[in-house]
Amino acid sequence: MNFEHEQRLRVRYAETDQMGVVYYANYLIWFEVGRVEYCRAIGVSYKEMEKVANCFLAVVEANCRYHAPLTYDMEFVLRTRLTHFKRGFLAFDYRLVNLDGSGPLAVGWTKHIVTGPDGNPKNIPHPYAGLFKSGTPVSGSEVE
Amino acid sequence: MNFEHEQRLRVRYAETDQMGVVYYANYLIWFEVGRVEYCRAIGVSYKEMEKVANCFLAVVEANCRYHAPLTYDMEFVLRTRLTHFKRGFLAFDYRLVNLDGSGPLAVGWTKHIVTGPDGNPKNIPHPYAGLFKSGTPVSGSEVE
Amino acid sequence: MNFEHEQRLRVRYAETDQMGVVYYANYLIWFEVGRVEYCRAIGVSYKEMEKVANCFLAVVEANCRYHAPLTYDMEFVLRTRLTHFKRGFLAFDYRLVNLDGSGPLAVGWTKHIVTGPDGNPKNIPHPYAGLFKSGTPVSGSEVE
Amino acid sequence: MNFEHEQRLRVRYAETDQMGVVYYANYLIWFEVGRVEYCRAIGVSYKEMEKVANCFLAVVEANCRYHAPLTYDMEFVLRTRLTHFKRGFLAFDYRLVNLDGSGPLAVGWTKHIVTGPDGNPKNIPHPYAGLFKSGTPVSGSEVE
Repeated sequence: MNFEHEQRLRVRYAETDQMGVVYYANYLIWFEVGRVEYCRAIGVSYKEMEKVANCFLAVVEANCRYHAPLTYDMEFVLRTRLTHFKRGFLAFDYRLVNLDGSGPLAVGWTKHIVTGPDGNPKNIPHPYAGLFKSGTPVSGSEVE
Repeated sequence: MNFEHEQRLRVRYAETDQMGVVYYANYLIWFEVGRVEYCRAIGVSYKEMEKVANCFLAVVEANCRYHAPLTYDMEFVLRTRLTHFKRGFLAFDYRLVNLDGSGPLAVGWTKHIVTGPDGNPKNIPHPYAGLFKSGTPVSGSEVE
Repeated sequence: MNFEHEQRLRVRYAETDQMGVVYYANYLIWFEVGRVEYCRAIGVSYKEMEKVANCFLAVVEANCRYHAPLTYDMEFVLRTRLTHFKRGFLAFDYRLVNLDGSGPLAVGWTKHIVTGPDGNPKNIPHPYAGLFKSGTPVSGSEVE
Repeated sequence: MNFEHEQRLRVRYAETDQMGVVYYANYLIWFEVGRVEYCRAIGVSYKEMEKVANCFLAVVEANCRYHAPLTYDMEFVLRTRLTHFKRGFLAFDYRLVNLDGSGPLAVGWTKHIVTGPDGNPKNIPHPYAGLFKSGTPVSGSEVE
Protein backbone atom coordinates (compact mmCIF):
# COMPACT_ATOMS: atom_id res chain seq x y z
CA MET A 1 0.00 0.00 0.00
CA ASN A 2 2.96 2.27 -0.56
CA PHE A 3 2.17 2.84 -4.17
CA GLU A 4 1.82 6.48 -5.13
CA HIS A 5 0.01 7.24 -8.32
CA GLU A 6 1.10 10.23 -10.40
CA GLN A 7 -1.26 12.08 -12.68
CA ARG A 8 -0.27 15.06 -14.80
CA LEU A 9 -2.93 17.74 -15.11
CA ARG A 10 -3.26 21.21 -16.61
CA VAL A 11 -5.32 24.06 -15.16
CA ARG A 12 -8.39 24.86 -17.27
CA TYR A 13 -9.68 28.38 -17.74
CA ALA A 14 -12.98 27.29 -16.21
CA GLU A 15 -11.13 26.38 -13.04
CA THR A 16 -9.87 29.91 -12.37
CA ASP A 17 -11.79 32.65 -10.61
CA GLN A 18 -11.53 36.42 -10.71
CA MET A 19 -8.65 36.36 -8.22
CA GLY A 20 -6.69 34.97 -11.19
CA VAL A 21 -6.00 31.65 -9.52
CA VAL A 22 -7.73 28.28 -9.28
CA TYR A 23 -10.98 28.38 -7.31
CA TYR A 24 -10.58 26.36 -4.13
CA ALA A 25 -13.40 23.85 -4.70
CA ASN A 26 -11.76 22.59 -7.88
CA TYR A 27 -8.97 20.88 -5.95
CA LEU A 28 -11.58 18.38 -4.73
CA ILE A 29 -12.47 17.62 -8.34
CA TRP A 30 -8.81 16.91 -9.05
CA PHE A 31 -8.62 14.71 -5.94
CA GLU A 32 -11.45 12.68 -7.43
CA VAL A 33 -9.52 12.37 -10.70
CA GLY A 34 -6.46 11.22 -8.75
CA ARG A 35 -8.54 8.71 -6.79
CA VAL A 36 -10.08 7.20 -9.90
CA GLU A 37 -6.72 6.96 -11.65
CA TYR A 38 -5.15 5.42 -8.54
CA CYS A 39 -7.88 2.77 -8.64
CA ARG A 40 -7.35 2.16 -12.35
CA ALA A 41 -3.60 1.82 -11.79
CA ILE A 42 -4.06 -0.96 -9.22
CA GLY A 43 -6.55 -2.74 -11.46
CA VAL A 44 -9.83 -1.40 -10.09
CA SER A 45 -12.24 0.20 -12.52
CA TYR A 46 -14.26 2.47 -10.29
CA LYS A 47 -16.95 2.65 -12.95
CA GLU A 48 -17.30 -1.14 -12.97
CA MET A 49 -17.21 -1.31 -9.20
CA GLU A 50 -20.24 0.96 -9.11
CA LYS A 51 -22.08 -0.73 -11.95
CA VAL A 52 -21.25 -4.40 -11.46
CA ALA A 53 -20.61 -4.66 -7.74
CA ASN A 54 -22.98 -1.86 -6.69
CA CYS A 55 -20.23 -0.42 -4.54
CA PHE A 56 -19.90 3.32 -4.03
CA LEU A 57 -17.15 5.23 -2.27
CA ALA A 58 -19.15 7.86 -0.40
CA VAL A 59 -17.03 10.74 0.87
CA VAL A 60 -17.42 11.31 4.58
CA GLU A 61 -14.75 13.95 5.01
CA ALA A 62 -12.49 16.01 2.79
CA ASN A 63 -9.67 18.38 3.61
CA CYS A 64 -7.33 20.56 1.60
CA ARG A 65 -4.45 22.85 2.53
CA TYR A 66 -3.54 25.40 -0.11
CA HIS A 67 0.19 26.17 -0.12
CA ALA A 68 0.73 28.11 -3.33
CA PRO A 69 -1.78 29.36 -5.88
CA LEU A 70 -2.19 27.58 -9.20
CA THR A 71 -2.71 29.71 -12.24
CA TYR A 72 -4.31 29.19 -15.60
CA ASP A 73 -2.61 26.77 -18.00
CA MET A 74 -0.11 25.64 -15.38
CA GLU A 75 0.81 21.99 -15.45
CA PHE A 76 1.26 20.06 -12.25
CA VAL A 77 1.47 16.57 -10.87
CA LEU A 78 -1.12 15.07 -8.56
CA ARG A 79 0.21 12.31 -6.34
CA THR A 80 -2.42 10.03 -4.84
CA ARG A 81 -1.95 7.34 -2.19
CA LEU A 82 -4.31 5.02 -0.41
CA THR A 83 -3.51 5.52 3.28
CA HIS A 84 -6.13 3.33 4.96
CA PHE A 85 -8.07 0.37 3.80
CA LYS A 86 -10.57 -1.66 5.73
CA ARG A 87 -13.39 -3.62 4.19
CA GLY A 88 -15.84 -0.74 4.52
CA PHE A 89 -13.52 2.24 4.81
CA LEU A 90 -10.82 3.88 2.70
CA ALA A 91 -8.72 7.00 3.03
CA PHE A 92 -6.62 8.66 0.37
CA ASP A 93 -4.16 11.47 0.48
CA TYR A 94 -3.19 13.85 -2.28
CA ARG A 95 -0.21 16.02 -3.00
CA LEU A 96 -0.01 18.57 -5.78
CA VAL A 97 3.52 19.37 -6.88
CA ASN A 98 5.23 21.14 -9.74
CA LEU A 99 6.42 19.14 -12.74
CA ASP A 100 9.94 19.11 -11.28
CA GLY A 101 8.59 17.68 -8.04
CA SER A 102 8.97 20.92 -6.05
CA GLY A 103 6.19 22.05 -3.81
CA PRO A 104 3.81 21.05 -2.48
CA LEU A 105 1.29 23.38 -4.05
CA ALA A 106 -1.45 21.76 -2.02
CA VAL A 107 -2.03 18.70 0.14
CA GLY A 108 -5.26 17.05 1.10
CA TRP A 109 -7.06 13.89 2.06
CA THR A 110 -10.46 12.27 1.79
CA LYS A 111 -12.17 9.57 3.86
CA HIS A 112 -14.75 7.26 2.36
CA ILE A 113 -17.16 4.63 3.47
CA VAL A 114 -18.30 1.93 1.12
CA THR A 115 -22.02 1.91 0.46
CA GLY A 116 -24.61 0.27 -1.72
CA PRO A 117 -26.79 2.31 -4.06
CA ASP A 118 -29.18 2.82 -1.10
CA GLY A 119 -26.45 4.58 0.87
CA ASN A 120 -26.16 1.78 3.42
CA PRO A 121 -22.67 0.71 4.45
CA LYS A 122 -21.30 -2.48 2.99
CA ASN A 123 -17.99 -4.20 2.49
CA ILE A 124 -16.02 -4.12 -0.70
CA PRO A 125 -16.42 -7.53 -2.32
CA HIS A 126 -13.85 -9.59 -4.18
CA PRO A 127 -11.85 -9.05 -6.26
CA TYR A 128 -11.80 -5.34 -5.39
CA ALA A 129 -10.92 -5.85 -1.72
CA GLY A 130 -7.80 -7.79 -2.63
CA LEU A 131 -6.69 -5.24 -5.17
CA PHE A 132 -7.04 -2.36 -2.70
CA LYS A 133 -5.31 -4.39 0.00
CA SER A 134 -2.26 -5.15 -2.09
CA GLY A 135 -2.27 -1.67 -3.60
CA THR A 136 0.11 -2.70 -6.34
CA PRO A 137 0.09 -1.19 -9.78
CA VAL A 138 -0.88 -3.78 -12.32
CA SER A 139 1.40 -4.17 -15.30
CA GLY A 140 0.14 -2.36 -18.33
CA SER A 141 -1.70 0.11 -16.15
CA GLU A 142 -0.26 3.02 -18.06
CA VAL A 143 -2.78 5.74 -17.52
CA GLU A 144 -2.50 8.60 -19.88
CA MET B 1 -48.16 29.38 -22.91
CA ASN B 2 -47.35 33.05 -22.67
CA PHE B 3 -46.32 32.84 -19.06
CA GLU B 4 -42.85 34.13 -18.35
CA HIS B 5 -41.22 33.05 -15.13
CA GLU B 6 -38.89 35.45 -13.34
CA GLN B 7 -36.11 34.28 -11.09
CA ARG B 8 -33.74 36.57 -9.26
CA LEU B 9 -30.17 35.33 -9.01
CA ARG B 10 -26.83 36.60 -7.77
CA VAL B 11 -23.44 35.85 -9.32
CA ARG B 12 -21.31 33.57 -7.13
CA TYR B 13 -17.55 33.96 -6.86
CA ALA B 14 -17.20 30.39 -8.14
CA GLU B 15 -18.95 31.45 -11.33
CA THR B 16 -16.34 34.03 -12.30
CA ASP B 17 -13.13 33.33 -14.18
CA GLN B 18 -9.83 35.17 -14.36
CA MET B 19 -11.23 37.55 -16.97
CA GLY B 20 -13.18 38.95 -14.00
CA VAL B 21 -16.56 38.04 -15.45
CA VAL B 22 -18.87 35.04 -15.36
CA TYR B 23 -17.48 32.00 -17.19
CA TYR B 24 -19.61 31.26 -20.23
CA ALA B 25 -20.66 27.71 -19.35
CA ASN B 26 -22.36 28.89 -16.16
CA TYR B 27 -25.19 30.52 -18.09
CA LEU B 28 -26.38 27.04 -19.00
CA ILE B 29 -26.52 26.17 -15.31
CA TRP B 30 -28.71 29.23 -14.72
CA PHE B 31 -30.91 28.23 -17.66
CA GLU B 32 -31.47 24.93 -15.89
CA VAL B 33 -32.43 26.78 -12.70
CA GLY B 34 -34.87 28.92 -14.70
CA ARG B 35 -36.31 25.83 -16.38
CA VAL B 36 -36.89 24.03 -13.10
CA GLU B 37 -38.45 27.09 -11.50
CA TYR B 38 -40.65 27.64 -14.55
CA CYS B 39 -41.90 24.06 -14.12
CA ARG B 40 -42.49 24.56 -10.41
CA ALA B 41 -44.44 27.75 -11.11
CA ILE B 42 -46.85 25.97 -13.45
CA GLY B 43 -47.30 23.14 -10.98
CA VAL B 44 -44.74 20.65 -12.27
CA SER B 45 -42.17 19.32 -9.85
CA TYR B 46 -39.35 18.30 -12.16
CA LYS B 47 -37.92 16.14 -9.40
CA GLU B 48 -41.18 14.23 -9.07
CA MET B 49 -41.56 13.96 -12.82
CA GLU B 50 -38.19 12.18 -12.93
CA LYS B 51 -38.82 10.00 -9.89
CA VAL B 52 -42.50 9.16 -10.15
CA ALA B 53 -43.20 9.36 -13.87
CA ASN B 54 -39.72 8.31 -15.01
CA CYS B 55 -39.67 11.26 -17.40
CA PHE B 56 -36.48 13.10 -18.19
CA LEU B 57 -36.00 16.24 -20.21
CA ALA B 58 -32.86 15.43 -22.17
CA VAL B 59 -31.21 18.45 -23.76
CA VAL B 60 -30.69 18.08 -27.50
CA GLU B 61 -29.48 21.58 -28.25
CA ALA B 62 -28.48 24.66 -26.29
CA ASN B 63 -27.58 28.14 -27.41
CA CYS B 64 -26.52 31.32 -25.67
CA ARG B 65 -25.73 34.82 -26.91
CA TYR B 66 -23.69 36.92 -24.50
CA HIS B 67 -24.58 40.61 -24.71
CA ALA B 68 -22.92 42.17 -21.68
CA PRO B 69 -20.59 40.61 -19.11
CA LEU B 70 -21.87 39.73 -15.66
CA THR B 71 -19.58 40.40 -12.76
CA TYR B 72 -19.22 38.96 -9.30
CA ASP B 73 -22.02 39.65 -6.81
CA MET B 74 -24.24 41.24 -9.45
CA GLU B 75 -27.93 40.54 -9.16
CA PHE B 76 -30.00 39.89 -12.23
CA VAL B 77 -33.32 38.50 -13.35
CA LEU B 78 -33.65 35.35 -15.41
CA ARG B 79 -36.83 35.23 -17.50
CA THR B 80 -37.84 31.78 -18.71
CA ARG B 81 -40.59 30.88 -21.17
CA LEU B 82 -41.77 27.62 -22.66
CA THR B 83 -41.82 28.29 -26.40
CA HIS B 84 -42.76 24.87 -27.80
CA PHE B 85 -44.56 21.96 -26.33
CA LYS B 86 -45.41 18.71 -27.99
CA ARG B 87 -45.91 15.44 -26.16
CA GLY B 88 -42.28 14.43 -26.60
CA PHE B 89 -40.56 17.74 -27.23
CA LEU B 90 -40.14 21.04 -25.38
CA ALA B 91 -38.24 24.24 -26.03
CA PHE B 92 -37.51 27.02 -23.59
CA ASP B 93 -36.04 30.44 -24.02
CA TYR B 94 -34.18 32.51 -21.50
CA ARG B 95 -33.44 36.17 -21.09
CA LEU B 96 -31.11 37.65 -18.51
CA VAL B 97 -31.85 41.25 -17.63
CA ASN B 98 -30.84 43.75 -15.00
CA LEU B 99 -33.01 44.20 -11.91
CA ASP B 100 -34.60 47.25 -13.52
CA GLY B 101 -35.47 45.20 -16.59
CA SER B 102 -32.82 46.77 -18.83
CA GLY B 103 -30.72 44.59 -21.00
CA PRO B 104 -30.65 41.90 -22.16
CA LEU B 105 -27.41 40.72 -20.63
CA ALA B 106 -27.79 37.41 -22.43
CA VAL B 107 -30.39 35.42 -24.31
CA GLY B 108 -30.55 31.74 -25.00
CA TRP B 109 -32.67 28.71 -25.65
CA THR B 110 -32.67 24.98 -25.09
CA LYS B 111 -34.47 22.13 -26.88
CA HIS B 112 -35.39 18.94 -25.10
CA ILE B 113 -36.81 15.57 -25.90
CA VAL B 114 -38.65 13.58 -23.30
CA THR B 115 -37.05 10.25 -22.46
CA GLY B 116 -37.33 7.38 -20.05
CA PRO B 117 -34.43 6.45 -17.76
CA ASP B 118 -33.12 4.29 -20.62
CA GLY B 119 -32.77 7.34 -22.85
CA ASN B 120 -35.53 6.23 -25.20
CA PRO B 121 -38.05 8.85 -26.34
CA LYS B 122 -41.44 8.85 -24.71
CA ASN B 123 -44.39 11.17 -24.22
CA ILE B 124 -45.01 13.21 -21.15
CA PRO B 125 -47.84 11.53 -19.26
CA HIS B 126 -50.72 13.12 -17.38
CA PRO B 127 -50.98 15.30 -15.44
CA TYR B 128 -47.69 16.85 -16.58
CA ALA B 129 -48.71 17.16 -20.23
CA GLY B 130 -51.76 19.23 -19.34
CA LEU B 131 -49.80 21.49 -17.04
CA PHE B 132 -47.16 22.21 -19.70
CA LYS B 133 -49.86 22.72 -22.33
CA SER B 134 -51.75 25.30 -20.32
CA GLY B 135 -48.52 26.88 -19.07
CA THR B 136 -50.34 28.80 -16.38
CA PRO B 137 -48.82 29.67 -13.06
CA VAL B 138 -50.64 27.87 -10.30
CA SER B 139 -51.82 29.99 -7.41
CA GLY B 140 -49.54 29.78 -4.44
CA SER B 141 -46.64 28.95 -6.68
CA GLU B 142 -44.50 31.60 -5.08
CA VAL B 143 -41.02 30.40 -5.71
CA GLU B 144 -38.42 32.11 -3.68
CA MET C 1 -18.70 37.58 17.01
CA ASN C 2 -21.50 35.23 17.97
CA PHE C 3 -23.63 36.17 15.03
CA GLU C 4 -24.68 33.26 12.87
CA HIS C 5 -25.85 34.05 9.39
CA GLU C 6 -28.56 31.90 7.83
CA GLN C 7 -28.88 31.43 4.11
CA ARG C 8 -31.54 29.33 2.45
CA LEU C 9 -30.40 27.43 -0.63
CA ARG C 10 -31.80 24.86 -3.03
CA VAL C 11 -29.84 22.07 -4.69
CA ARG C 12 -29.37 22.63 -8.43
CA TYR C 13 -29.44 19.78 -10.92
CA ALA C 14 -25.91 20.76 -11.97
CA GLU C 15 -24.76 20.11 -8.42
CA THR C 16 -25.72 16.43 -8.43
CA ASP C 17 -23.61 13.60 -9.76
CA GLN C 18 -24.47 10.14 -11.00
CA MET C 19 -24.65 8.81 -7.46
CA GLY C 20 -27.87 10.85 -7.33
CA VAL C 21 -26.61 13.17 -4.61
CA VAL C 22 -24.71 16.43 -4.46
CA TYR C 23 -21.10 16.16 -5.63
CA TYR C 24 -18.76 16.75 -2.70
CA ALA C 25 -16.85 19.72 -4.12
CA ASN C 26 -20.02 21.79 -4.38
CA TYR C 27 -20.26 22.17 -0.61
CA LEU C 28 -17.21 24.44 -0.82
CA ILE C 29 -19.04 26.61 -3.33
CA TRP C 30 -21.93 26.94 -0.88
CA PHE C 31 -19.49 27.75 1.92
CA GLU C 32 -18.28 30.65 -0.24
CA VAL C 33 -21.87 31.81 -0.70
CA GLY C 34 -22.39 31.65 3.07
CA ARG C 35 -19.15 33.55 3.67
CA VAL C 36 -20.06 36.33 1.29
CA GLU C 37 -23.57 36.64 2.72
CA TYR C 38 -22.18 36.63 6.26
CA CYS C 39 -19.96 39.55 5.24
CA ARG C 40 -22.85 41.39 3.62
CA ALA C 41 -24.97 40.89 6.76
CA ILE C 42 -22.34 42.55 8.98
CA GLY C 43 -21.94 45.43 6.54
CA VAL C 44 -18.97 44.23 4.52
CA SER C 45 -19.32 44.07 0.75
CA TYR C 46 -16.72 41.48 -0.18
CA LYS C 47 -16.81 42.74 -3.74
CA GLU C 48 -15.96 46.25 -2.62
CA MET C 49 -13.30 45.01 -0.23
CA GLU C 50 -11.55 43.39 -3.19
CA LYS C 51 -12.03 46.30 -5.56
CA VAL C 52 -11.63 49.34 -3.35
CA ALA C 53 -9.39 48.11 -0.56
CA ASN C 54 -7.48 45.54 -2.64
CA CYS C 55 -8.06 42.97 0.06
CA PHE C 56 -8.55 39.33 -0.77
CA LEU C 57 -9.47 36.47 1.52
CA ALA C 58 -7.23 33.70 0.25
CA VAL C 59 -8.23 30.25 1.45
CA VAL C 60 -5.42 28.40 3.19
CA GLU C 61 -7.38 25.39 4.37
CA ALA C 62 -10.84 23.97 3.91
CA ASN C 63 -12.57 21.04 5.52
CA CYS C 64 -15.95 19.40 5.19
CA ARG C 65 -17.63 16.48 6.94
CA TYR C 66 -20.56 14.99 5.08
CA HIS C 67 -23.25 13.67 7.43
CA ALA C 68 -26.21 13.00 5.19
CA PRO C 69 -26.52 13.21 1.41
CA LEU C 70 -28.31 16.12 -0.21
CA THR C 71 -30.48 15.38 -3.18
CA TYR C 72 -31.69 17.37 -6.13
CA ASP C 73 -34.16 20.19 -5.45
CA MET C 74 -33.81 19.84 -1.69
CA GLU C 75 -33.88 23.07 0.27
CA PHE C 76 -31.61 23.56 3.21
CA VAL C 77 -30.18 26.23 5.47
CA LEU C 78 -26.53 27.16 5.55
CA ARG C 79 -25.40 28.64 8.85
CA THR C 80 -22.17 30.61 8.72
CA ARG C 81 -20.16 31.99 11.64
CA LEU C 82 -16.89 33.87 11.87
CA THR C 83 -14.90 31.91 14.45
CA HIS C 84 -11.54 33.71 14.40
CA PHE C 85 -10.56 37.18 13.41
CA LYS C 86 -7.16 38.72 13.54
CA ARG C 87 -6.01 41.57 11.32
CA GLY C 88 -4.57 39.22 8.73
CA PHE C 89 -6.42 35.98 9.44
CA LEU C 90 -10.04 34.81 9.51
CA ALA C 91 -11.77 31.49 10.05
CA PHE C 92 -15.37 30.62 9.34
CA ASP C 93 -17.44 27.62 10.13
CA TYR C 94 -20.44 26.30 8.29
CA ARG C 95 -23.34 24.08 9.20
CA LEU C 96 -25.89 22.75 6.74
CA VAL C 97 -29.20 21.84 8.30
CA ASN C 98 -32.70 20.99 7.14
CA LEU C 99 -35.32 23.74 6.93
CA ASP C 100 -36.68 22.66 10.32
CA GLY C 101 -33.22 22.99 11.85
CA SER C 102 -32.59 19.23 12.10
CA GLY C 103 -29.30 17.83 11.03
CA PRO C 104 -26.55 18.64 10.50
CA LEU C 105 -26.33 17.51 6.91
CA ALA C 106 -22.74 18.68 6.76
CA VAL C 107 -20.31 20.77 8.76
CA GLY C 108 -17.15 22.46 7.64
CA TRP C 109 -14.70 25.27 8.11
CA THR C 110 -12.32 27.43 6.13
CA LYS C 111 -9.24 29.41 7.12
CA HIS C 112 -8.16 32.50 5.26
CA ILE C 113 -5.30 34.89 5.17
CA VAL C 114 -5.74 38.42 3.96
CA THR C 115 -3.67 39.29 0.91
CA GLY C 116 -3.17 42.01 -1.62
CA PRO C 117 -3.68 41.38 -5.32
CA ASP C 118 -0.04 40.22 -5.45
CA GLY C 119 -0.81 37.44 -2.97
CA ASN C 120 1.29 38.99 -0.22
CA PRO C 121 -0.17 39.02 3.29
CA LYS C 122 -1.63 42.26 4.56
CA ASN C 123 -3.97 43.48 7.26
CA ILE C 124 -7.61 44.26 6.73
CA PRO C 125 -7.92 48.05 6.73
CA HIS C 126 -10.66 50.18 8.20
CA PRO C 127 -13.59 50.12 8.18
CA TYR C 128 -13.62 46.42 7.37
CA ALA C 129 -11.53 45.38 10.38
CA GLY C 130 -13.99 46.98 12.79
CA LEU C 131 -16.97 45.40 11.10
CA PHE C 132 -15.45 41.92 11.27
CA LYS C 133 -14.37 42.48 14.87
CA SER C 134 -17.82 43.44 16.07
CA GLY C 135 -19.48 40.83 13.87
CA THR C 136 -22.87 42.39 14.32
CA PRO C 137 -25.57 42.29 11.70
CA VAL C 138 -26.26 45.77 10.45
CA SER C 139 -29.87 46.86 10.39
CA GLY C 140 -31.43 46.55 7.01
CA SER C 141 -29.02 43.82 6.07
CA GLU C 142 -31.81 41.64 4.82
CA VAL C 143 -30.14 39.30 2.47
CA GLU C 144 -32.47 37.45 0.26
CA MET D 1 -6.96 27.14 -41.75
CA ASN D 2 -7.93 23.53 -42.39
CA PHE D 3 -6.04 22.23 -39.43
CA GLU D 4 -8.14 20.21 -37.01
CA HIS D 5 -6.78 19.76 -33.54
CA GLU D 6 -7.48 16.52 -31.70
CA GLN D 7 -7.60 16.30 -27.95
CA ARG D 8 -8.29 13.12 -26.02
CA LEU D 9 -10.34 13.58 -22.87
CA ARG D 10 -11.95 11.39 -20.22
CA VAL D 11 -15.24 12.12 -18.46
CA ARG D 12 -14.76 13.04 -14.80
CA TYR D 13 -17.19 11.97 -12.09
CA ALA D 14 -17.78 15.63 -11.29
CA GLU D 15 -19.01 16.14 -14.83
CA THR D 16 -21.93 13.72 -14.50
CA ASP D 17 -25.33 14.51 -13.07
CA GLN D 18 -28.02 12.35 -11.53
CA MET D 19 -29.32 11.38 -14.97
CA GLY D 20 -26.11 9.33 -15.09
CA VAL D 21 -24.67 11.25 -18.03
CA VAL D 22 -22.54 14.34 -18.51
CA TYR D 23 -24.29 17.56 -17.50
CA TYR D 24 -24.88 19.71 -20.56
CA ALA D 25 -22.94 22.80 -19.46
CA ASN D 26 -19.71 20.82 -19.20
CA TYR D 27 -19.42 20.50 -22.97
CA LEU D 28 -18.68 24.23 -23.07
CA ILE D 29 -15.81 23.68 -20.65
CA TRP D 30 -14.40 21.02 -22.96
CA PHE D 31 -14.83 23.38 -25.94
CA GLU D 32 -12.64 25.84 -24.06
CA VAL D 33 -10.04 23.13 -23.52
CA GLY D 34 -10.14 22.32 -27.23
CA ARG D 35 -9.83 26.01 -28.14
CA VAL D 36 -6.82 26.53 -25.92
CA GLU D 37 -5.11 23.41 -27.20
CA TYR D 38 -5.86 24.39 -30.80
CA CYS D 39 -4.13 27.71 -30.10
CA ARG D 40 -1.16 25.98 -28.49
CA ALA D 41 -0.86 23.65 -31.47
CA ILE D 42 -0.57 26.55 -33.93
CA GLY D 43 1.96 28.30 -31.73
CA VAL D 44 -0.30 30.64 -29.77
CA SER D 45 -0.13 30.53 -26.00
CA TYR D 46 -3.53 31.85 -25.00
CA LYS D 47 -2.18 32.55 -21.54
CA GLU D 48 0.59 34.72 -22.95
CA MET D 49 -1.79 36.43 -25.36
CA GLU D 50 -3.86 37.54 -22.38
CA LYS D 51 -0.91 38.50 -20.21
CA VAL D 52 1.55 39.99 -22.66
CA ALA D 53 -0.65 41.28 -25.46
CA ASN D 54 -3.68 42.08 -23.27
CA CYS D 55 -5.90 40.26 -25.76
CA PHE D 56 -8.93 38.34 -24.63
CA LEU D 57 -11.21 36.13 -26.67
CA ALA D 58 -14.61 37.08 -25.30
CA VAL D 59 -17.36 34.63 -26.19
CA VAL D 60 -20.32 36.26 -27.91
CA GLU D 61 -22.26 33.13 -28.78
CA ALA D 62 -22.04 29.43 -28.05
CA ASN D 63 -24.02 26.52 -29.37
CA CYS D 64 -24.05 22.79 -28.75
CA ARG D 65 -26.03 19.91 -30.21
CA TYR D 66 -26.05 16.77 -28.10
CA HIS D 67 -26.20 13.61 -30.23
CA ALA D 68 -25.44 10.82 -27.80
CA PRO D 69 -24.94 10.91 -24.04
CA LEU D 70 -21.48 10.65 -22.56
CA THR D 71 -21.07 8.59 -19.44
CA TYR D 72 -18.63 8.55 -16.60
CA ASP D 73 -15.05 7.47 -17.34
CA MET D 74 -15.69 7.35 -21.08
CA GLU D 75 -12.83 8.52 -23.28
CA PHE D 76 -13.51 10.58 -26.34
CA VAL D 77 -11.80 12.81 -28.87
CA LEU D 78 -12.53 16.50 -29.19
CA ARG D 79 -11.82 17.91 -32.64
CA THR D 80 -11.42 21.67 -32.82
CA ARG D 81 -11.16 23.85 -35.89
CA LEU D 82 -10.88 27.57 -36.44
CA THR D 83 -13.62 28.36 -38.96
CA HIS D 84 -13.41 32.16 -39.20
CA PHE D 85 -10.66 34.59 -38.51
CA LYS D 86 -10.74 38.31 -38.91
CA ARG D 87 -8.56 40.71 -36.98
CA GLY D 88 -11.18 41.19 -34.27
CA PHE D 89 -13.34 38.11 -34.66
CA LEU D 90 -12.86 34.34 -34.47
CA ALA D 91 -15.13 31.34 -34.68
CA PHE D 92 -14.35 27.76 -33.74
CA ASP D 93 -16.22 24.57 -34.20
CA TYR D 94 -16.03 21.43 -32.14
CA ARG D 95 -16.84 17.81 -32.73
CA LEU D 96 -16.84 15.13 -30.07
CA VAL D 97 -16.31 11.64 -31.40
CA ASN D 98 -15.52 8.21 -30.02
CA LEU D 99 -11.92 7.02 -29.89
CA ASP D 100 -12.48 5.07 -33.12
CA GLY D 101 -13.73 8.22 -34.84
CA SER D 102 -17.39 7.20 -34.83
CA GLY D 103 -20.03 9.66 -33.82
CA PRO D 104 -20.45 12.51 -33.49
CA LEU D 105 -21.39 12.49 -29.83
CA ALA D 106 -21.87 16.24 -29.94
CA VAL D 107 -21.10 19.17 -32.20
CA GLY D 108 -20.88 22.82 -31.37
CA TRP D 109 -19.40 26.18 -32.15
CA THR D 110 -18.38 29.40 -30.45
CA LYS D 111 -17.96 32.95 -31.73
CA HIS D 112 -15.55 35.36 -30.15
CA ILE D 113 -14.59 38.97 -30.38
CA VAL D 114 -11.17 40.15 -29.41
CA THR D 115 -11.12 42.63 -26.53
CA GLY D 116 -8.75 44.41 -24.23
CA PRO D 117 -8.94 43.94 -20.46
CA ASP D 118 -11.53 46.75 -20.43
CA GLY D 119 -13.83 44.71 -22.65
CA ASN D 120 -13.45 47.05 -25.61
CA PRO D 121 -12.97 45.48 -29.04
CA LYS D 122 -9.48 45.44 -30.48
CA ASN D 123 -7.52 43.65 -33.15
CA ILE D 124 -5.24 40.74 -32.50
CA PRO D 125 -1.67 42.07 -32.78
CA HIS D 126 1.35 40.39 -34.27
CA PRO D 127 2.56 37.72 -34.11
CA TYR D 128 -0.74 36.18 -33.03
CA ALA D 129 -2.71 37.41 -36.05
CA GLY D 130 -0.33 35.70 -38.44
CA LEU D 131 -0.40 32.46 -36.51
CA PHE D 132 -4.19 32.34 -36.51
CA LYS D 133 -4.31 33.29 -40.18
CA SER D 134 -2.02 30.49 -41.27
CA GLY D 135 -3.57 28.06 -38.81
CA THR D 136 -0.74 25.62 -39.21
CA PRO D 137 0.43 23.33 -36.46
CA VAL D 138 3.94 24.27 -35.43
CA SER D 139 6.46 21.48 -35.30
CA GLY D 140 7.03 20.19 -31.83
CA SER D 141 3.57 21.25 -30.79
CA GLU D 142 2.90 17.90 -29.24
CA VAL D 143 0.17 18.58 -26.77
CA GLU D 144 -0.33 15.88 -24.29
